[in-house]
Amino acid sequence: MTQIAIVYHSGFGHTDVLAADVARGVEEAGAHPALLRIEAGQTDFDAFFAAIAESDAIIFGSPTYMGNVSAPMKAFMDASAAVYFTRQWKDKLGAAFTVSGSPSGDKLNTLTSLAIFAAQHGMLWISTGQNPGNNDDTSAATDIENRLGSFIGAMAQAANDSPEVTPKAGDRATARSLGARVARAAARWRRGADAPLPEAALVG
Amino acid sequence: MTQIAIVYHSGFGHTDVLAADVARGVEEAGAHPALLRIEAGQTDFDAFFAAIAESDAIIFGSPTYMGNVSAPMKAFMDASAAVYFTRQWKDKLGAAFTVSGSPSGDKLNTLTSLAIFAAQHGMLWISTGQNPGNNDDTSAATDIENRLGSFIGAMAQAANDSPEVTPKAGDRATARSLGARVARAAARWRRGADAPLPEAALVG
Amino acid sequence: MTQIAIVYHSGFGHTDVLAADVARGVEEAGAHPALLRIEAGQTDFDAFFAAIAESDAIIFGSPTYMGNVSAPMKAFMDASAAVYFTRQWKDKLGAAFTVSGSPSGDKLNTLTSLAIFAAQHGMLWISTGQNPGNNDDTSAATDIENRLGSFIGAMAQAANDSPEVTPKAGDRATARSLGARVARAAARWRRGADAPLPEAALVG
Amino acid sequence: MTQIAIVYHSGFGHTDVLAADVARGVEEAGAHPALLRIEAGQTDFDAFFAAIAESDAIIFGSPTYMGNVSAPMKAFMDASAAVYFTRQWKDKLGAAFTVSGSPSGDKLNTLTSLAIFAAQHGMLWISTGQNPGNNDDTSAATDIENRLGSFIGAMAQAANDSPEVTPKAGDRATARSLGARVARAAARWRRGADAPLPEAALVG
Repeated sequence: MTQIAIVYHSGFGHTDVLAADVARGVEEAGAHPALLRIEAGQTDFDAFFAAIAESDAIIFGSPTYMGNVSAPMKAFMDASAAVYFTRQWKDKLGAAFTVSGSPSGDKLNTLTSLAIFAAQHGMLWISTGQNPGNNDDTSAATDIENRLGSFIGAMAQAANDSPEVTPKAGDRATARSLGARVARAAARWRRGADAPLPEAALVG
Repeated sequence: MTQIAIVYHSGFGHTDVLAADVARGVEEAGAHPALLRIEAGQTDFDAFFAAIAESDAIIFGSPTYMGNVSAPMKAFMDASAAVYFTRQWKDKLGAAFTVSGSPSGDKLNTLTSLAIFAAQHGMLWISTGQNPGNNDDTSAATDIENRLGSFIGAMAQAANDSPEVTPKAGDRATARSLGARVARAAARWRRGADAPLPEAALVG
Repeated sequence: MTQIAIVYHSGFGHTDVLAADVARGVEEAGAHPALLRIEAGQTDFDAFFAAIAESDAIIFGSPTYMGNVSAPMKAFMDASAAVYFTRQWKDKLGAAFTVSGSPSGDKLNTLTSLAIFAAQHGMLWISTGQNPGNNDDTSAATDIENRLGSFIGAMAQAANDSPEVTPKAGDRATARSLGARVARAAARWRRGADAPLPEAALVG
Repeated sequence: MTQIAIVYHSGFGHTDVLAADVARGVEEAGAHPALLRIEAGQTDFDAFFAAIAESDAIIFGSPTYMGNVSAPMKAFMDASAAVYFTRQWKDKLGAAFTVSGSPSGDKLNTLTSLAIFAAQHGMLWISTGQNPGNNDDTSAATDIENRLGSFIGAMAQAANDSPEVTPKAGDRATARSLGARVARAAARWRRGADAPLPEAALVG
């Protein structure tokens, strides 16, 4: 069965909400989500690396703090240097989601930093695959997928409020769609590896 | 008198609106704005370079097209390679503004690309200096400065509508504030160059 | 047969050399390279879009000018907005290569900008998949693959010399490896789409 | 007296070497360097914030780990959120240096991430101001300033060797130049604030 690791850190619970939505999307696409929650101060990630070794894809989730991944997420990334030298994650799929208080809030830097990180590991990167959801500058609609307009990863906005009420429905649906998309891509990628080579390729 | 060059391209008029707002801010801060509008297909930028040579700062404005500066803006940037080798822009101040249809819309990549470009010329980069204006994910308020939450440059969102009605008041005020901030910074930077060195420095 | 479009611009011939190397790699992996060379000033890309429609992957190649893709490459990117709205490139594979005069030379910004661009089109991004080739700061060896240490795309360095002698062997081999890697990934990705779904997925 | 805070983390001693070179440059330009070394696991940065409050500029130094600032540097950045809300660093100058094992090694992402971070604090960003030092792809010369070709911050390359022998002279001179440049800019910026306003501005 296709397994998707979801490695994430949540400071105030908003990324927890999104990680659960990503996991729901993964399940709906017929794959198994392995939720790996990074704790502040964590330095031992061996159990994470073991679960990732069994996974077809890794979806990284981090709040955007000061325009970048959070320090606990970075601790995980730095610890992965040990795996890096073994090339264990090569050809796995990667994707990312992030959340901050502003519509833009420099969230793009978090997502591109995670894409650069995944590339160092030799991974493939899965975009959200969605059109921008909201081109209306006067709309308060928060129930539209990809309303913030992000593509290299999923973005959400959380008010200074409880994770029970924020992020709103549209951003949560965006996270769910990302989970489903990565799961479908991982299944296709795996089938492609298992399928017999066409004859032409044998002499190629 | 402090002069601020505003080099910009506008495809559909929205960046024109913002450039005028930036110019207004420059004037309000007691400096002279030199508006330099790039036309599609333009390859000769000698008049631009002459005006910039007389300027204390350059504010770059471009719509975000496909996640980056527009091609006409890039044509200007590439043409500046001739100036690059002379180091003419070294120690001038730089700043940027951009607009696209989505709240995020990868606008950050346009702004960081312009900051990287300015750094190649040896310039100093002026941030917006503003707190994020809107941390409320359900708000439709469009009259708040820095409502999109951008710092390395000013961001605006334009609906698929006439530049007479979009971008809205908050984004236009953000552009105006950027113009004023750069003008004030340029005046201070120039005074600093003209002021007598303190005695301590003379023996430093 | 798997077809890989190579869309590139070359100002002084160095990117031409790399594009040919990428094409060689594509062929060696049993796929067909469609070389699409952007000319300075080009505004009509319909023939390009037709060839890309028949391709499984697009490899973008651009010199790094002033810390970003060249203006002619950006003209192509902007023109692709027409395709963007049709989602034609969704789920195609993407990758990139670039060249400039310095070892770093802000080439990373060209590559991430192209990855962001591909993500807007809903594409998947293929990393180089290589370890860094050269961790020795005193070595002049130029025959090592990935000697510059790039992952989200392939980097080359060209001296101020004829494309007949620069970039050197290591950088050219890096480009060739990228072509082969993208071709293999595209074949696997296509086989995955064609392979029968496992039974479990049918009820998912 | 102008004071320049140098906030840095060093994992294996190479960033220590560069920080000392930056400090030397600061002193040569007649300013006082305040070296603030981040320890792994550090969470209390109050003493750092107190020293920074007395400083005119902050130069950030971090190794590039997995394509981004190190986790300990990120811990400092996240902790600065408390200062962020007070706007204490607004209009201070900022700059950065980084080191990794490869010539490129995604170091640019570390530098732009630090520039984005400084912009969130409302700071001004100081580029290296240097031309690229080495456009010769066959040269092993390591004694040239800015040999790697970086502009938005200073880059160094360190072999897998002791900090006593790497980074080499050219990269160390680049760091020293950055320190001197920031110190000179900070002195000019401060004089500009202290100098009497020209009459024209009084009625502006």
